[in-house]
This record gives sequence, structure tokens and C-alpha cells, in this order.
Amino acid sequence: MHPTSDERLRPFPRFWDEPRETLALAPRRELILERVQAQLRDVYERNPFYRRLYDAHGVRPDQIRSLDDFTARVPIVTKQMIRDDQAAHPPFGSYSTTEPHDVARVFGSSGTTGTPTLYAISKGDWARAAEAQAMAVWGMGVRPGDVVQLAFPFSMFIGGWALLLGVEGIGATAFSVGALDSRRQVELIGLTRSTVLMATPSYVMHLAEVARNLGVDLRRSSIHTLIVGGEPGGGVPGSKEAMKAAWGAHVTICDTGNTSECFPTQMNSSCHHGTGMHVYEDEVYLEIVSPDDLNRGVVDGEFGATVYTTLWRQSQPMIRFAAGDRARLSREPCACGRTYPRLPEGLVCRLDDTLLIRGVNVYPSAIEATLRQIDGVGSEYRVFVEKHGAMDDLRIEVEVDRPWLNAQGDDAAAARAHLVKKLADELRHDLGIRVDVQLVDAGTFEQMVFKARRVIDKRTPAT
Amino acid sequence: MHPTSDERLRPFPRFWDEPRETLALAPRRELILERVQAQLRDVYERNPFYRRLYDAHGVRPDQIRSLDDFTARVPIVTKQMIRDDQAAHPPFGSYSTTEPHDVARVFGSSGTTGTPTLYAISKGDWARAAEAQAMAVWGMGVRPGDVVQLAFPFSMFIGGWALLLGVEGIGATAFSVGALDSRRQVELIGLTRSTVLMATPSYVMHLAEVARNLGVDLRRSSIHTLIVGGEPGGGVPGSKEAMKAAWGAHVTICDTGNTSECFPTQMNSSCHHGTGMHVYEDEVYLEIVSPDDLNRGVVDGEFGATVYTTLWRQSQPMIRFAAGDRARLSREPCACGRTYPRLPEGLVCRLDDTLLIRGVNVYPSAIEATLRQIDGVGSEYRVFVEKHGAMDDLRIEVEVDRPWLNAQGDDAAAARAHLVKKLADELRHDLGIRVDVQLVDAGTFEQMVFKARRVIDKRTPAT
Repeated sequence: MHPTSDERLRPFPRFWDEPRETLALAPRRELILERVQAQLRDVYERNPFYRRLYDAHGVRPDQIRSLDDFTARVPIVTKQMIRDDQAAHPPFGSYSTTEPHDVARVFGSSGTTGTPTLYAISKGDWARAAEAQAMAVWGMGVRPGDVVQLAFPFSMFIGGWALLLGVEGIGATAFSVGALDSRRQVELIGLTRSTVLMATPSYVMHLAEVARNLGVDLRRSSIHTLIVGGEPGGGVPGSKEAMKAAWGAHVTICDTGNTSECFPTQMNSSCHHGTGMHVYEDEVYLEIVSPDDLNRGVVDGEFGATVYTTLWRQSQPMIRFAAGDRARLSREPCACGRTYPRLPEGLVCRLDDTLLIRGVNVYPSAIEATLRQIDGVGSEYRVFVEKHGAMDDLRIEVEVDRPWLNAQGDDAAAARAHLVKKLADELRHDLGIRVDVQLVDAGTFEQMVFKARRVIDKRTPAT
Repeated sequence: MHPTSDERLRPFPRFWDEPRETLALAPRRELILERVQAQLRDVYERNPFYRRLYDAHGVRPDQIRSLDDFTARVPIVTKQMIRDDQAAHPPFGSYSTTEPHDVARVFGSSGTTGTPTLYAISKGDWARAAEAQAMAVWGMGVRPGDVVQLAFPFSMFIGGWALLLGVEGIGATAFSVGALDSRRQVELIGLTRSTVLMATPSYVMHLAEVARNLGVDLRRSSIHTLIVGGEPGGGVPGSKEAMKAAWGAHVTICDTGNTSECFPTQMNSSCHHGTGMHVYEDEVYLEIVSPDDLNRGVVDGEFGATVYTTLWRQSQPMIRFAAGDRARLSREPCACGRTYPRLPEGLVCRLDDTLLIRGVNVYPSAIEATLRQIDGVGSEYRVFVEKHGAMDDLRIEVEVDRPWLNAQGDDAAAARAHLVKKLADELRHDLGIRVDVQLVDAGTFEQMVFKARRVIDKRTPAT
């Protein structure tokens, strides 16, 4: 039998840094304001990029006397601004003022096409990030003695490296497998008796399918915790249920969602209670603002756009960085005892991934959430956006789950027809628009294993 | 203009740990003997694998009073013994006695087919390895301010991870790119202005060809040092010249050669004087022994088989581990001032890779050394061993260098014929047997980028 997570965690302290993690709201907000002011003064003095930006907007650090001032007056930094500045001031941009001998690590955005954005992390920031990552990895219920199989790629992408810092930081065992043949990943779980798997939600589901084909029942494996990140999937309810079905109901699923520009420090990670991601806002301050006006906050509990401010960074500080994700902040207490606020739904999706179809905003993660709740749906699907005359149409090709289909026996044809209708009804209900659904055989689509992109937009770009 | 390595290194201390690196032979051998005895006592007491082995051979630690005793009396450990013990005592073998909560990292042998051998490294060993790797990376002339592009894969293979420890340890900047598209690797050198590249010798040559196709002249790049390992290539003279031709005559080429079973600590690495690899024998003791009798040492300067003993390991100590490489030890002083002995030719080749052809031992690295010295030879080749009747034949298909061929103009046919004859003559001279040489077009063979395997043995296995 698998021990419960309570049994597993009982011998250890509950918190990594109790005074910090349980600090009351008021003193934490005071601390955040102090740090915001300190970062503003620092960049205005030493950072050519921010100096130019704030001068152009007529903003001076001493004008910011509250967090409300900060939201209302300090201009946003976008990915495009970072990219342009780096191109104009190679190699790391004028927003990066770290001396060469003080750079610990260099990473880059994926940039599979075009020029990647480079990130130069100072030695001090690298050390501080290890502490913040340790706090988050401990919060996700990883402990010394756990063998953590890290299946994020270890390459120029910073994600896996930052989590590795946390695993090392708490003294668990790191099995940094990285990108490797998927059958081998499944076999290695059995060989090393790994207890925690870290990967994208897509890859976690892909491994489940690979295991099934190998005749391996992952519900009997040594894995007790799945830590997923790099894509919204972990916060999508249907997706979580699908993971539990494949990996076992006893498995704890934790979600971690961060932004490369603010990495390697920790920003958002769930605790093992699964109440959404906690926001480590004394490390990186998160504002939820109106997508239409990034200088206007929304009230707690309302959905809005995420804007991040690193509070302790020496190298490439990000101040009011618009990450482009959609989220909602809750300050309801969590059973874990941490006073950090939460994103109950996680990071719902990149706002710039939103599809505008016949005037309706459609979030790809909402499509996924619907599909994952319906019996008979296989592991992959593709969304096609097509223009028919003046109208945009949404068409979805969904793989049928093979074991489910086999179980229908002679009624397979009727079951397929029923499934198509159910999918069309549910999608219309959840998305608010009509969707054309087609079923395809299992295995039709390539498994998405990293940064899943399942939307094919065939409309010509607007001119 | 590129600064010389002397100019570059002048502002820094010469040694990482001067008393240790310049210790005289006699006190170092005393220290080695003490450590050998301590490791023997430790494993005899606590390690079931070694206890069984030594009891079976009637060896007790207190019988070992000198390093000669050690060589003559202590039995060898082979890869097969390690593999069998791990299969019988999963997951890490009875030779691994580290408590689960004290394991920092787990790695594995490549094991592209079959079950990989797992390595469980204790926290203490991981910390100690960082210090030994730092000493070696400093010895190779890397300094703070250098940007080190690590193009070894970061996966379950331990090699790149160990070197990363050293780069971090000395405070240089690590750009841990890992396995990535080769064109992207070349572009990244330009983008980040990397000054040191770490990769296999095959991959270093592959990148040179990729750069040429991109129209990038690597001789003008920011790279001043190539650190190659994972294959014998770096110690093969012709190979070094080919690297300098592609990357610039000013580039320092350092070779590092280790054994996964004894990693992540440092064993053998060259200094920037290029006098072969220094043997860090106070970390891992190296014996060169007769390939026919692994309990008989050969005199300094004679070629023999390598046998390693880790001197400070807590986790999976290797005592008289037969790595199967061929090498020669020199105690001639080196201009760098380190008193560590040297392997002037590096690790010449895996003994088990040796081809026995018509009674003659042929080393694949010797074939490579010959080819790399001859103008007109392209970047790849393949060696075919075939049986014709009772006779084994060696046939080599060699790519022609395209720019060289174009430069021959109307004389191309004659130049090819001349090249074939020259290759056959040189190979016969260097290997001692007749070799059938055929030229093929550039690009015929896949570029070997990691753990190059260029020998195809078509003989049926002996029965």
C-alpha cells in the first residue's frame, strides 16, 4: 500500500522557513513595498534601460509611496522591449548590468526560430534562487530520501535547472535525466525507484501512454508526487484527473508556473493540498491587472493579466514585467498554513495564445479542460481555426481512446457517434461557440511532450 | 588580435591549490598509500561487495604495506562485476552502501541498449568532486570572466555534470547548452561570446564543418580554449592539428579523460601546455599494469592498461577498477609546475576496442591519427573489418575534403588517385598491415558527434 502524504511528511518539519512562509499579510505587504522601492531606486541609479524608461514616462522612484502608486504609475516592461534592448546592446541588453566575472550562469529562451533572448544570472542571484526554489520544492512535499526524476530538458532553457537547485537545496536525491527516450524514462522509474517525477503535464500523460504500451502499470510504481510545469496543464481540472487515472489516485499533483525572464527564482508553486499555486510574493511580487489597462489592478478574486516584479534581483531585474498570463488571486487561507496568496486555477493560459473567434475569446486550456473530462477521449487532439468566407470556424480532431473503443464491442459505431455529439455539446457549452468535432484513430497525432502547441490557426494574418 | 594564453592567465594565481598541486613525489606517494589503506579498511568493514571479494581472494587490508603490495595482491574490479552486483542487489548494488537520504545525485551509464549501470553519489562525494573538478578546470586555463559553453549532453550521463561542477567551482560563467541543434550551437558562440567550448572531439570537428557551411569563420570567434573529452580524440596528434586548423592556431586544446565509474571526481586532464593529461593521482590513484596480468605494474614510460582506485570516496568506492584503457605514464616535469605525472598520449584507446587483424593489434585511434595528418582527407571516415576466406581485411572509406578537391581544378582525378596511394602507404606504415582505401564524397557519412563509433566489424564472432 502507498502511504498517504500526511504519513510521509509527518517526520519532517512542515515549513522550510516558517517565519517567512507564515508571515501575516500586513507586514508582508510592508516588506514588499520596501523592496519595490529599493529595486526602483537601484535601477533608476544603475540601470540604463530603466533610467531611460522612467525618464520617458516622467516617473521617479521617490514618487512611489504605496503599492497602489506602483501599479498606477510605473510603466510596464514587455518581452518585446527586452528583446529589442538586447539586440541593441548585445550580448545581454542594457537592462543587464552584471559585470562579466560576476555572471554565474547564462541561459536562453527556446527561440527555436529566430534569435533567443539570453539571461545572464549573477552569482548572488543564483545563490538566492537556490533558497527560494528549496522553499517551494519543500512546499510541494519533496523530502530528503525522495528520488526526484527530472524529465525537463537540461539545455539552454532555464526551467529544469531552477527546479534542480531546489531539489539539491532541500537535500533530496536528484536524478537529472533530462530529455531522454520515453521508454527509457519509464524503465528508469522502475530501476531507480524514483518517488517524484518532474515534467510538463503533456509529458506526464505521454509517459502514461508509453507505459501502457510497455505493459507497465504506473499506479504500482514508486512515484508518489508529480510536479508539472512549463505549460498550463497542471492547473486544468480534467487534466489532473487524467493524470491520477494513469499514475494512481494516491499520487499528489503539484503545479509550478514561472516566467523565464524572472527565473531562476521561484514565483508560483502549489503545496501538496492542491489548492492552486501559492504566490511567493515576497520573492517576486505579482499584480493581477486589467488586460485593457496594465496600470489598473483588479480586485482579489477577479481574473486579470499577470505582472511580475522581482524584489531581490541584482542581475536583469524585472520591474512590472507583463508575462501575458491570465490568472485570479485568492487570499482565502490554505490548509497548509502558508499565508502566501494563491492562484486557484493556476496560470490559465497565455493571453497572447487566446483565440478570437467570431468575437469570442477562446482559451486553448479551456478546450483541454473540457476534453479531459469526457470518457472515450484519447491522449491527443488538434484544434484548427479556419476561415470559411467571412466566418472563422473552430474544428477539433480528437483521438479516440483505444481501450475505451474496444470495450464498446459491437456498439463501437454508435458509441463513436454518441461521443461526437457529447463533445460538440460540451464544447459549445463551455466555450460559448459552435465547434466542429471529428474523431480520429489513437496515434494519429504526434504526442506533445514539451510546450504543447495543439492549435493550428489557418486564418491569414489580419492586415 | 587574440591575446596569448600567457597574457590571459597572468592576472590570476597559477594554481588552484598550490601546496597540493606542487607536492613532491615522495610525500605524495606516502599520502596515496595512507589513503589506499584507509579505503581498504573502510570497504572491508562496511562494504559487502568488497568484503566478499577480498575474503574470496584471501586478502586482508593489513597485508597491504606498500603500493607494490597493493598492485600485486589486491584483486581487480571489472565493469562486469559491477553490473552483475547491481543486478543482484538493486537499485545501486551491494558495493554502494550510501543511505538513501545521503544520496545527492543519481546518474547512469549510457546503456542505449540493455540495462544502464546506475551511479549513486553521496552528498560528501559530490561536494568533494566540485573541489577536484575546480582544480582541473583551473589547470586547463579557465578563469572567472570566461563564458564556458558546455556542449556535452546533460542527461543521465555524468560527464557534462562533473565538468559543470568545476566551471561553477572556479567562478567562471557556465552556459550549459547541452545537446542542441549544431547550427544553434555555432550561432550561440557568436551571441554569448563564449570563450571556452567543452565537447567531444568529434563534436568540435562537426561544429567546425557546420560553421563552414554557415559561412562562419570560427578562427575569428571568441573561443580561446577547447576542452575535449569523452573520446580519445583530444590526445590524438593529427586530431589536435585539425582542430587548430578549424578553430585557429591560437586556440588552446585541453583533453580530459575520465571513467564514469569513478566520476564525478577528476582523474586526468591536461594543463594548457598541452603535454598530455596530468593524473590527479592523490584523488584517484592510477596504476599502469600489464594487460596480460593486472597484478603486475609496468615501469614508468611503458604502455599498459589503466587501473583506478578512488582515494576519498564514501559512495561506491572503486578499488583497482580496470577501466580498460591503454596509456603510458611519464614523470618528466611539466612547464606548468604541477608535479602530477602525465599521460603524454592521453588515453590512447579502450583496450576492448582494439581490432585483432591477421594477428596484429590495430587501434582505431591510430587510424584516426594517420588520416588527420594527410591533406585532402575530409571530416568523416569508416573502417570496415571483413573476412575474405580465412583472411581478415581492413577497408577504409574516407571522405574527400571538398574545398581541397575544388582547389585541384582539372587535376582532380589525378589528385584523388594520388591521395588513395598516399593513404594506403601511410596506413600500412603506421599500422603494420595492408589497408584497402576508398575515397567517397564529402557528406557520405553521418557526422559522429558523441562517443564516435567509426568501426564496423563484419566478421562473424569467433566460436
